[in-house]
Amino acid sequence: MEFQIDWQRAGRTGVPEAILCSRKTPTQLAAILAEARARGARLLLTRLDEAAFAALDEAARDGLDYDPASRTAVLGGAVPLVAGSVAVVAAGTSDLAVAHEAARTLAFCGHEALLVADVGVAGLWRLMARIEDIRAHRVVIAVAGMEGALFSVIGGLVAAPVIAVPSSVGYGVAEGGSAALHSALASCAPGVVAVNIDNGFGAACAAIKMLGVPAPAMVG
Amino acid sequence: MEFQIDWQRAGRTGVPEAILCSRKTPTQLAAILAEARARGARLLLTRLDEAAFAALDEAARDGLDYDPASRTAVLGGAVPLVAGSVAVVAAGTSDLAVAHEAARTLAFCGHEALLVADVGVAGLWRLMARIEDIRAHRVVIAVAGMEGALFSVIGGLVAAPVIAVPSSVGYGVAEGGSAALHSALASCAPGVVAVNIDNGFGAACAAIKMLGVPAPAMVG
Amino acid sequence: MEFQIDWQRAGRTGVPEAILCSRKTPTQLAAILAEARARGARLLLTRLDEAAFAALDEAARDGLDYDPASRTAVLGGAVPLVAGSVAVVAAGTSDLAVAHEAARTLAFCGHEALLVADVGVAGLWRLMARIEDIRAHRVVIAVAGMEGALFSVIGGLVAAPVIAVPSSVGYGVAEGGSAALHSALASCAPGVVAVNIDNGFGAACAAIKMLGVPAPAMVG
Amino acid sequence: MEFQIDWQRAGRTGVPEAILCSRKTPTQLAAILAEARARGARLLLTRLDEAAFAALDEAARDGLDYDPASRTAVLGGAVPLVAGSVAVVAAGTSDLAVAHEAARTLAFCGHEALLVADVGVAGLWRLMARIEDIRAHRVVIAVAGMEGALFSVIGGLVAAPVIAVPSSVGYGVAEGGSAALHSALASCAPGVVAVNIDNGFGAACAAIKMLGVPAPAMVG
Amino acid sequence: MEFQIDWQRAGRTGVPEAILCSRKTPTQLAAILAEARARGARLLLTRLDEAAFAALDEAARDGLDYDPASRTAVLGGAVPLVAGSVAVVAAGTSDLAVAHEAARTLAFCGHEALLVADVGVAGLWRLMARIEDIRAHRVVIAVAGMEGALFSVIGGLVAAPVIAVPSSVGYGVAEGGSAALHSALASCAPGVVAVNIDNGFGAACAAIKMLGVPAPAMVG
Amino acid sequence: MEFQIDWQRAGRTGVPEAILCSRKTPTQLAAILAEARARGARLLLTRLDEAAFAALDEAARDGLDYDPASRTAVLGGAVPLVAGSVAVVAAGTSDLAVAHEAARTLAFCGHEALLVADVGVAGLWRLMARIEDIRAHRVVIAVAGMEGALFSVIGGLVAAPVIAVPSSVGYGVAEGGSAALHSALASCAPGVVAVNIDNGFGAACAAIKMLGVPAPAMVG
Amino acid sequence: MEFQIDWQRAGRTGVPEAILCSRKTPTQLAAILAEARARGARLLLTRLDEAAFAALDEAARDGLDYDPASRTAVLGGAVPLVAGSVAVVAAGTSDLAVAHEAARTLAFCGHEALLVADVGVAGLWRLMARIEDIRAHRVVIAVAGMEGALFSVIGGLVAAPVIAVPSSVGYGVAEGGSAALHSALASCAPGVVAVNIDNGFGAACAAIKMLGVPAPAMVG
Amino acid sequence: MEFQIDWQRAGRTGVPEAILCSRKTPTQLAAILAEARARGARLLLTRLDEAAFAALDEAARDGLDYDPASRTAVLGGAVPLVAGSVAVVAAGTSDLAVAHEAARTLAFCGHEALLVADVGVAGLWRLMARIEDIRAHRVVIAVAGMEGALFSVIGGLVAAPVIAVPSSVGYGVAEGGSAALHSALASCAPGVVAVNIDNGFGAACAAIKMLGVPAPAMVG
Repeated sequence: MEFQIDWQRAGRTGVPEAILCSRKTPTQLAAILAEARARGARLLLTRLDEAAFAALDEAARDGLDYDPASRTAVLGGAVPLVAGSVAVVAAGTSDLAVAHEAARTLAFCGHEALLVADVGVAGLWRLMARIEDIRAHRVVIAVAGMEGALFSVIGGLVAAPVIAVPSSVGYGVAEGGSAALHSALASCAPGVVAVNIDNGFGAACAAIKMLGVPAPAMVG
Repeated sequence: MEFQIDWQRAGRTGVPEAILCSRKTPTQLAAILAEARARGARLLLTRLDEAAFAALDEAARDGLDYDPASRTAVLGGAVPLVAGSVAVVAAGTSDLAVAHEAARTLAFCGHEALLVADVGVAGLWRLMARIEDIRAHRVVIAVAGMEGALFSVIGGLVAAPVIAVPSSVGYGVAEGGSAALHSALASCAPGVVAVNIDNGFGAACAAIKMLGVPAPAMVG
Repeated sequence: MEFQIDWQRAGRTGVPEAILCSRKTPTQLAAILAEARARGARLLLTRLDEAAFAALDEAARDGLDYDPASRTAVLGGAVPLVAGSVAVVAAGTSDLAVAHEAARTLAFCGHEALLVADVGVAGLWRLMARIEDIRAHRVVIAVAGMEGALFSVIGGLVAAPVIAVPSSVGYGVAEGGSAALHSALASCAPGVVAVNIDNGFGAACAAIKMLGVPAPAMVG
Repeated sequence: MEFQIDWQRAGRTGVPEAILCSRKTPTQLAAILAEARARGARLLLTRLDEAAFAALDEAARDGLDYDPASRTAVLGGAVPLVAGSVAVVAAGTSDLAVAHEAARTLAFCGHEALLVADVGVAGLWRLMARIEDIRAHRVVIAVAGMEGALFSVIGGLVAAPVIAVPSSVGYGVAEGGSAALHSALASCAPGVVAVNIDNGFGAACAAIKMLGVPAPAMVG
Repeated sequence: MEFQIDWQRAGRTGVPEAILCSRKTPTQLAAILAEARARGARLLLTRLDEAAFAALDEAARDGLDYDPASRTAVLGGAVPLVAGSVAVVAAGTSDLAVAHEAARTLAFCGHEALLVADVGVAGLWRLMARIEDIRAHRVVIAVAGMEGALFSVIGGLVAAPVIAVPSSVGYGVAEGGSAALHSALASCAPGVVAVNIDNGFGAACAAIKMLGVPAPAMVG
Repeated sequence: MEFQIDWQRAGRTGVPEAILCSRKTPTQLAAILAEARARGARLLLTRLDEAAFAALDEAARDGLDYDPASRTAVLGGAVPLVAGSVAVVAAGTSDLAVAHEAARTLAFCGHEALLVADVGVAGLWRLMARIEDIRAHRVVIAVAGMEGALFSVIGGLVAAPVIAVPSSVGYGVAEGGSAALHSALASCAPGVVAVNIDNGFGAACAAIKMLGVPAPAMVG
Repeated sequence: MEFQIDWQRAGRTGVPEAILCSRKTPTQLAAILAEARARGARLLLTRLDEAAFAALDEAARDGLDYDPASRTAVLGGAVPLVAGSVAVVAAGTSDLAVAHEAARTLAFCGHEALLVADVGVAGLWRLMARIEDIRAHRVVIAVAGMEGALFSVIGGLVAAPVIAVPSSVGYGVAEGGSAALHSALASCAPGVVAVNIDNGFGAACAAIKMLGVPAPAMVG
Repeated sequence: MEFQIDWQRAGRTGVPEAILCSRKTPTQLAAILAEARARGARLLLTRLDEAAFAALDEAARDGLDYDPASRTAVLGGAVPLVAGSVAVVAAGTSDLAVAHEAARTLAFCGHEALLVADVGVAGLWRLMARIEDIRAHRVVIAVAGMEGALFSVIGGLVAAPVIAVPSSVGYGVAEGGSAALHSALASCAPGVVAVNIDNGFGAACAAIKMLGVPAPAMVG
C-alpha cells in the first residue's frame, strides 16, 4: 500500500491530518478519498488546483466541497463555526489565495476567521482603520509577500500572538517569497513567529494549537 | 538623544522591551541603564557576553543580575516564578546557551521553564524517556542545530504549540544554522512555527504571548 | 560519433552504464539503443518520461520494458531477482517516483528491494510499525523531501548503512530539495551518506557497490 | 605610481572623490594624503577605524579631523553648513555608525543633516512623533538593519525621495544585512531607492546629486 | 471587500497608486477598474501582459489605453507632457520592455522621457555619441541586464542622480538579474542608487520624487 | 532607433559582433537583419531556437544559413575554413548543443574545430583514447555539465590554454550549471579559464583572440 | 543534567557514540569524560583543537591519547588493528587533517587504514601510481577540497564503494567547501556517496557500517 | 610521505608547479623546500603571508626571495626577463596584492609585466590615458573588485585576450568578490575569460599558456 493516513493525528497533536495534493496523481488521491469514506472520516485536501480537481473521476469527487479560491476541498461536511478567535490579515489582493487557505483550514476545525484584506504598510491608514477589529481576536495570522514589512508593524501593535505567513508574491529579490520570509524571521517586533512560504494551512494549524482547542473528532 | 526605549511595549504587545547588546558601546548601554534606573523600571539585557559585561563601569553594573550561560542580565530584581507552562527542549549540549536565553526571558516574565537537554533524535530513546514531562506543558520551545530533525519529531508527538529555535551549532552545510532553520520551516509536522536562528529571546516572547499572560508591569 | 557507451563500466566499477535520457533527443536515444542491440547488451534508461518514450519510433521502442512510475526502461530483459538485501523507504507518497527509480535499478542488477512507503516522522508510529522489517536488510535507502527528518531517525535506529536520497518534493524553503539534502548531510546520526537530489539511480548503484555483488554481465 | 586620485570628480559628477581606507596600508594612505596636501585639496576618508587612524604616522595625521563614531576623517577643514535639506533616520542605536557616515559626508559638502535615531517600527509611535520634522526635509536617508521594515513605512509617509541604506546589524537570516537590503528593494512603497549595505557615504552622495548642489570646489 | 485602493497616495507621497496586475484575476482587475471609473480617477496598470489584457471583458477594457511594449494600461486619458527632465537609457534591445515601463509611468505623470537605446559598454563609442544628450537631463534612469557595467560608467560621467534598474536579461550567473543588481549596488561611482530587478515603474516614481513635482491630481 | 550594431567590433577587438536572439522579437530581429543586408555585412545570430527561426518572416529568413543543433544562423555566407587550431571537447552527449555553438562561431571566423564528444571522466579511457588528437591543437575548449571534473583532468594533460564552458546539464545541486562553473573556477589545474554557463559563443571568441587571428572582415 | 551519552549507540547502529568538542566548554567535557571513566567505557573525542585540549584540567586529560594532526583524543586505550579494509585518499597536503580524523576513527574501531596523500587530478600520474593499492581495499574514503574532481575520477576506477568527504580547503568559489561538495553529489561516476564538509568522522562511521563489522564493545 | 610534487608539470602543461601555502604547516613547507633543494629545482610559493614566512626556520628560508606585497617567495633565483607580452591592470589600489601575485608569477617564468594601477571606470579618463600602452601587449590581465565593470570596458577596447581576475575587495553585496566574478562571467564584451576570485597566480599561468612559451625548465 502506497499511503498510510495518520488518522490519530488530531488526537495526538491537536491538528488534523490533511492531504497535500500538489504532487499526487488522480489515482493516489482517489484511493485516499476512498479510504476516508470507508472509515466515515472527515478529510481536508490542500493545494488542489482546478485542473487537479477536474482530473478526479466522479466517484472521487462525490460529496467533496471544493473551493477554487483557496484550492482546498473538504470531505465529510462542515462543522458549526465559532467566530472571534482568529484574524487573518492579508497585505495585498495577491496574497488572498494563501489567506483563504488559512481560513478554510480554520473553518474545517470549527473557527470562523475574520478576513482583513489589502492593508499593506505603504498606506498605513488602511491598517490603522482596522486595527481595533484585529486586536479583538486571540490569534493573528498575517500574510504578506514583497518585503513583508506588515509583520513587524502588526507585531508592534497587538498583544495576541502573530503568525507570519510569507507569500511568494513578488519579483526580483522578492521572487519566491524569501525576502518576506526573512523579514518575518528578523522582525524587530519580538514574539512574531513564522511558517514556510505560502503555508496558510500550517499557520492555521499553529493557531488551532495556540487556541488549545482540539480539532473536531475525526472518526477513523 | 540616541535611543528611545519603548517603555509602553509590554502594555501594548504583552512582551517586554529588551536591549540587544551585541553592537552597542559601553557608553550607550550605561545611558540606557541609567534611564531605566531613573524610571524605576525593570529591564532585560540580551547578548551581553562576558567581555561586554566586564567593559561596563561599576555604576552601570550596579544591581545587575548577570548570567554568563545565557549572556543575559536583569536590572530591577526577580519576580515570583510559576512553573508548569513552558518546556524548553535542547537537542544537544551545544544548544544550551540559546535554551538558557529563552529560560531567562521566561523567568524575567514570571515563568519557570522545564529545561530538557541532550535529546537529539539519533538516540530517540532519550526523547521518549522525557516525552510525558514535556507533554505536561502548555507551550514547547525546541532548540536544535545541525539538521534540526528534533522539530518534526516533537511536533508529531505533542498537542501544545511547538516553537522551533534553530541554533547556529553546526559546520559545513549546517554552518550558521540555515539547515536547521529550513528543517523547522519545512517540517512535515503541521503547526510547528519558527523564530530566527539563535533567537531564544524571541521564542520566549512568543510563548508568553501564547500563554496570554501579560508581562509583569514595567514602571516607566 | 556523438556518443561512446562505457560498456566496460560494470566490470571496472561494479555498476552498470545507464543512459540519463532527460536532455537527449529521440534520434540520439535511438542510436544508443541500436548500438546496444547490435552488441546484444542489456541497457537501463532513466529519466525517460512518458512524452519522451512516446517520441521514440517503433524500432527504438522494440523490446523495451517501460515503467512510467519510475520513468525507466530496460532493454534486454529481466534477470532473476534475489530478495532481502535492500530496503527502500519513502517518507511520503510523493517521494515514490524516486523510490521506484532506485528499486528498478536494483532489479536491473538482480536485487528485489523491499519498498516501505509513507512513513514520515510526523506520525512516528508508522515507521516504528515497520522498523523490524527494515532492520532485516543489509542496506537501507531512504527517500524524503520537505525537511528530511526521516534520515536522522532511521540512521539512529538501524545498523545497516543508510543512503539518503533527498527528493525535490516541497515548496518554499524546501523547493527543489535543498532543505532535505542539507538535513541528510548534517544528520546527527553518524554514518548516514547522501546522493544528489532525486538520484534514485545513484543510490541504487551505491547500494550495489556496498553489497559487493558485481552487476549482471553486460555483453558488449 | 600606485594611485590616481580622480580630482575632477566633483566637477564632472557633482560628488567628491573620497578614499575608502578599509584595505589600504598606512603607507598608501600617507602617500594619498601627501598628494592632497601638495594640491591644497580637501579630502574625505571613510572606513578609517581607530586602529587604522592610530597606525598613521604624525605627518599623515597632521590637520586631519578624525571622528571615530563615523570612522571618517576630513583633510582641509570644514565648510559653512546649511541645514534643512536632508533628514537621516536610523532605526536603532546600532545603526548610528552608518548614519553618522552619511551625516559626515553631507557636512563635508556643506549640508547639516537632521539626525533622528531609534525609531524602529516595532514601536510606531516613536516614528510618528518625529514624522513632521522628517517631512520638512527635501531628501530622506533611512538606515535600518534586521528586517528593514522602516523603509516601507517611511516611504509611504513622505513625499521626498527616500534613500534606503540597509545596515549589517542583525544575526541569523539578517546577518550581513541582506534581509534589510531585500526589504529596501522589494518595498511596497513606490519610489524608495537603495544603496549597498552600510554605504552611508553613497547615500549621502546620492542625496547631494538629488539636491542639485555641486560639492564644494576641490582645488587640485 | 478584497481591495482598498490608496487613493490618497499621490497627495501624501507624490507618486501615484498603481495596480501591479501580475497575480490578479480578471475579476479582481475588473472590480478595481470599476471603482476607479466610479470615482472618476485616473489609474495606471503595470505588468499587464497581452494574455491578461485579452482576458478582461469588454466593460473592463473600455477606455483603457493599452501598450504591449511596456505591458501597461492607462485609464482616464493622457495629461500634457513636458520634456527635458528625465533620460531613460537602456543597455540593450532586450532591456527595452523595462525602459518602456519607466517611460510610460513618467508620461502618466506628465513627463516625456528621452529614450536612448542599445548603448552597452562593450562598444563605448555608442554611449559617448549620446552622452551630451543624456547630460542635458535632470535625472537619469539606466536599465541594464547581464553584468550591468553601464551603471558605473554613466555614474562616472553625469552630475544628475542615476537610478539603476537591473533587468532580468541574461543567462548563467546573470539569470534573473542578480548580477546586474549587485553591480548597481557595488558601483564604484558614488551616488548611483538602485531599485528592484525589472522595476521600471519604481524607478520612474523615484525620478518623479526627485523632480519634486507632485503627480497629476487623481480625483477619487 | 532601438538598436545600434557595433559594426566596428571586429576591427577593434578581434571578435565579431553577434546577435543574441533569446529575448528579441521577430520584428527586432528582422530590422537588424535588414540593416546588415543593407551594409552587405556578414552576421552571426545565436540562441535562435527553432520556434524563433520559424517566427521570422520570409524576407528576414532569406539567405540565412540556420543550424538547429547549435541554434545559430549565419547571414552572408561561409568563409574558407582552416583546421588544426581549436579542439572542442564535450563531456557528454547532452553538452553537444553548447559545443556546436562554439564550433559554429569558430567556423564563422574561418576556423574548423575538431569536435570530440562523450569523454566524461567516469570512463577515463574514452578521454585517453583521444588525448593525442586534442594535444595537437593550439587551444582547447572543454564543455561539461554535472560536476565538471573534465576541466581539471584536461587542464592537467595539455599545454594549450583550456577554456572551460560549464553547461547547464544537470539536476539537483548541478541544476543550472553552477556546480560545473565552480569546478572550472576552482580547478586544481593552473591556467584553466572559464566563461559563463552555456556560453559556447564566448568561448569561441576567446579562442579567436588567443589565436591572434582577426575575424574575417565585416563590411559595414 | 546537561548531557546524556547514547551509550547504546554502537549496539544499536554499529557505530560508536563520539563527542564533538567544538562548542563545548572545558567543564562540560570534563563531566562527560568523568562519566565515561565511571562506566569504564572507551570514548572518542573529535574536533578537539590544541587550545581546547590544553584548557582541560589534569584530571580530565588523564589517560587521554591526544593526536593534534586529527584533532582527536581517545579515552580507554587502543584495540588491536586489522589492515586491508579501508583506503583513505587525500587530494592534497591540506586535506590531511580531515583524512587523519577518518583514519583515527577507523583505528578506534579496529581498522588500520591505508593513507594515500597528495594525488590530485592535475597530475593524474600520481593517482595512477597508487590505484592498484587503492583497489585492494573494500571501501574507499576520498578527501578533496577545491573543485573535488578526484571523487569522479576515483569513482570511475574502483569497484569498492567511494565515500566522498569534501574539505573546506579552497578560496573564492571554493571557500568553505561547497564547490567540492557539489562535485561529489553531482559526480558523473554512479555510486559515489557524500558526507558533510570536513566530516572525516562521519565517513569513517559509514565505512564501518559498510564493512558490517560492529564497533568494538563499549562497556557502559 | 605526505606530499608529491608534480615536477613534470611544466613539461606536460607549460605552467610550473607551485605551492599554495595558505593551509600548510611550517613543517610541511620545510619538507617541500628541502626536496626542491635536493633536486636543484626552482619553486614558487604563493599565499605565504608575513607571519607564515616568519614561522619558517632558518634552513627553510635559506635562499628564498620573499616579497610581502604579493605574498610570494621564489626558491632558486631569478631568470632573465622579457618585457612587452603582458599588461596587468588593477582597478584600484586595494587590488594591487592580487596584481602583484600575477606579476611575480609571470616574472618567475621570464615575463616582465607592465603594471597599470588605479584605473577604475568611475573616472574613465584614467583608463583612457593608458589604453594605448595596454593595447601594445599580447595578453591583458585585469584585476577588479566591487562591481568589476572594468572587465567589460577593457574587453570592448582591446584585441588581446582579457583574463579577468575578480578580487575580494568590497563589502555588502560585493563581499568576498562574487559580484565582480559575476560581472566577469556575464560580461557583454565577448571573449573575456575569468579565473577564481583573487587568483592572480592562475591568471598568470593562463597568460603563459596563451603566449605559448613553455615555462623555464625546472630541473628535478
